[in-house]
Amino acid sequence: MTLGEETARVVEKTEKDTNRLEAFSDGVFAIAITLLVLDLHVPPLTSIIHAASPGKALAGALLDNWPSYLSFILSFVTILIMWIYHHRLFQAVRRAETVLLFSNGLLLLLVTVVPFPTALVSAYLTTPAASVACATYAGFFACINLAYNLLWWVVTRQQPDMRVRKYFQGSMLISLLGFPSYLLALVVAFWLPWLCLSICSALWIAWVITAPKPLPEIA
Amino acid sequence: MTLGEETARVVEKTEKDTNRLEAFSDGVFAIAITLLVLDLHVPPLTSIIHAASPGKALAGALLDNWPSYLSFILSFVTILIMWIYHHRLFQAVRRAETVLLFSNGLLLLLVTVVPFPTALVSAYLTTPAASVACATYAGFFACINLAYNLLWWVVTRQQPDMRVRKYFQGSMLISLLGFPSYLLALVVAFWLPWLCLSICSALWIAWVITAPKPLPEIA
Amino acid sequence: MTLGEETARVVEKTEKDTNRLEAFSDGVFAIAITLLVLDLHVPPLTSIIHAASPGKALAGALLDNWPSYLSFILSFVTILIMWIYHHRLFQAVRRAETVLLFSNGLLLLLVTVVPFPTALVSAYLTTPAASVACATYAGFFACINLAYNLLWWVVTRQQPDMRVRKYFQGSMLISLLGFPSYLLALVVAFWLPWLCLSICSALWIAWVITAPKPLPEIA
Amino acid sequence: MTLGEETARVVEKTEKDTNRLEAFSDGVFAIAITLLVLDLHVPPLTSIIHAASPGKALAGALLDNWPSYLSFILSFVTILIMWIYHHRLFQAVRRAETVLLFSNGLLLLLVTVVPFPTALVSAYLTTPAASVACATYAGFFACINLAYNLLWWVVTRQQPDMRVRKYFQGSMLISLLGFPSYLLALVVAFWLPWLCLSICSALWIAWVITAPKPLPEIA
Repeated sequence: MTLGEETARVVEKTEKDTNRLEAFSDGVFAIAITLLVLDLHVPPLTSIIHAASPGKALAGALLDNWPSYLSFILSFVTILIMWIYHHRLFQAVRRAETVLLFSNGLLLLLVTVVPFPTALVSAYLTTPAASVACATYAGFFACINLAYNLLWWVVTRQQPDMRVRKYFQGSMLISLLGFPSYLLALVVAFWLPWLCLSICSALWIAWVITAPKPLPEIA
Repeated sequence: MTLGEETARVVEKTEKDTNRLEAFSDGVFAIAITLLVLDLHVPPLTSIIHAASPGKALAGALLDNWPSYLSFILSFVTILIMWIYHHRLFQAVRRAETVLLFSNGLLLLLVTVVPFPTALVSAYLTTPAASVACATYAGFFACINLAYNLLWWVVTRQQPDMRVRKYFQGSMLISLLGFPSYLLALVVAFWLPWLCLSICSALWIAWVITAPKPLPEIA
Repeated sequence: MTLGEETARVVEKTEKDTNRLEAFSDGVFAIAITLLVLDLHVPPLTSIIHAASPGKALAGALLDNWPSYLSFILSFVTILIMWIYHHRLFQAVRRAETVLLFSNGLLLLLVTVVPFPTALVSAYLTTPAASVACATYAGFFACINLAYNLLWWVVTRQQPDMRVRKYFQGSMLISLLGFPSYLLALVVAFWLPWLCLSICSALWIAWVITAPKPLPEIA
Repeated sequence: MTLGEETARVVEKTEKDTNRLEAFSDGVFAIAITLLVLDLHVPPLTSIIHAASPGKALAGALLDNWPSYLSFILSFVTILIMWIYHHRLFQAVRRAETVLLFSNGLLLLLVTVVPFPTALVSAYLTTPAASVACATYAGFFACINLAYNLLWWVVTRQQPDMRVRKYFQGSMLISLLGFPSYLLALVVAFWLPWLCLSICSALWIAWVITAPKPLPEIA
């Protein structure tokens, strides 16, 4: 075996195992984030072209759609942040163990569902059923947080390098904040739906600010 | 030609051939698994906000949707397990022969159809037509099992390395259980639809438990 | 610069350029092929559970859907074959020139549209408008053939290696058969819609049989 | 550590960081561009098969759909060009900084929305509300141009190599033309909707012609 072939072999082995797992996960994230656009609808033609001032009617109809734009942006940002954390986490993964495949699968299952509770909130936020919609939303994200922490634990556990392990433990401690905060938000929702959403949004903002940096010299 | 260039050539050749096949397959799996979410619908606003207790009405409407959640989770897990086996199988594939492309294509065709028989079962399970729905479900998965075994045979056949061949023959023997079990389930469905589903679920659980480990030192 | 770094550089450069083009194309092919499933619908519940024999009614409704299954399989196989040829063609591509990006884009545009003429034929085949539906179908595939031959020409043109060029010219000569055959099918459609479809299907079968083998020792 | 292992390490590190970012972006572009086909519908059967001349009725119905074909092609080309520029831009990216992930995410958010304003224009272009539809279209693309220029600035800023920096500054200067042109188009829309669209189309044509070439010897 020449040196060239040997190099090719090592390159291939180290990469192949997790590359497909990442490609599959990226696919699921990318599709979940893109399917959101199916909820944006052009205002129906008939009601608008028969209005006294069609231009104003169209502008009004577009502006009245704000809850669906808000829901779109909220879902998009949520999934994007989850992808960024997933991306950082998998920098340190070298082997696609079966337990990793399944815990990653659990997270992906919940990621694909994100648009559902988000649409629920945007549909019911201004109705008397807001409390149930917001509590469902908070409860769903409590589950996502559990799945994410499980995946984090599975990945960190298999790390042989002490420095990489430290890096994860340090930069992802804030993720553990999620579950108790979401539970609090769930309870609060029954009295103050808006406070529930504020807690959830505060968490996202905290996670954007503390988003982990790429692994620099190690790995 | 320098050593660097030669290395690059070898790396490229070994990878290129199957990387695209895997990327395409991953794409199909990822999309099939994500499209499932299109079947989850937010309860329609009008019936709920006019209820005596809108909060309870929304909670009730969400809970009444359980068959669609069950169908979603069942389809998701089914496709995920199929992806995991596909992932393990392709670890050992080095060349994208034409016969491999077509037998992989046949499996992908059936993977994309998975949501259809699953939705059929979840829609008709509590009706008098449950037997036909469950029999269709079992028959469809008998076909998937055939396609999977065909692909397994095509991949193993082209393996030059005896140890890799052994690895596949050992860990995938259980897959051959599928076809006779599904046929049994199909027949049983006409008397006991629930027993039919139990046989199918037992197979999935068996496949999760015996999911093949990554190829460790070989390849 | 050490040898390791230099190798890394060369590897990266040769791959990066076309890898993304292939990934993007694979994505489009994979999504187009998976979206087809959205046309398969579970028979509506109400008409079936009130039938005298719900089981038979469901079986009948499922069987009556045969045109949509046929259309699904036809579209799937069509896109799969196009992907296989695309896969073989790009084995020899090393640089993502701008003209290649656009001619590939033209082919992708047509690939994503494939389900449309296929659905048209499956909807109108048994009606008096079959001739127009079949002519549209043949005309559309004549355009795809043109786009495919253009891409083939762009790729072959940039090949410095004479043996690779020969390989393409030999194994893809049959693709040039497409355009005149589709034109013939288009004209024939106005008298014999079924003959039109037979010509189109014969072409697909010919292309499956003559599907190019992977580039073996060269490149 | 052998030379082979060291090479593998370097290869991996340089690639891994941006490969997933590109794969995710490619996924979003590919899905956004493919979902467009969901807006093409087969003419409904009933109105056509009862016409005096079903063939002519079907041909007429297909031709009457021209605005949806136009909208499809316009959206497709728009997203394709954005992908090509994105592809060229990321040739020079080596590290997936957090700020890059978010500015890329902002662009992707807007890319997935492209079909919405395009559908708006194609639905309202021949109605009295054309001015508002066209102004919305121009305003939306002004936002995309801002997001694109932001991403361009983030990528160029992190370039250590002076020649690569020059390459970007030279070939992407024309992108800065976008924002003022779109603002002009937005204002013009209220008097001459068609002139607004002409300005937008002229920009796309200019960007096709001046599409950056691949980075040749550098990087």
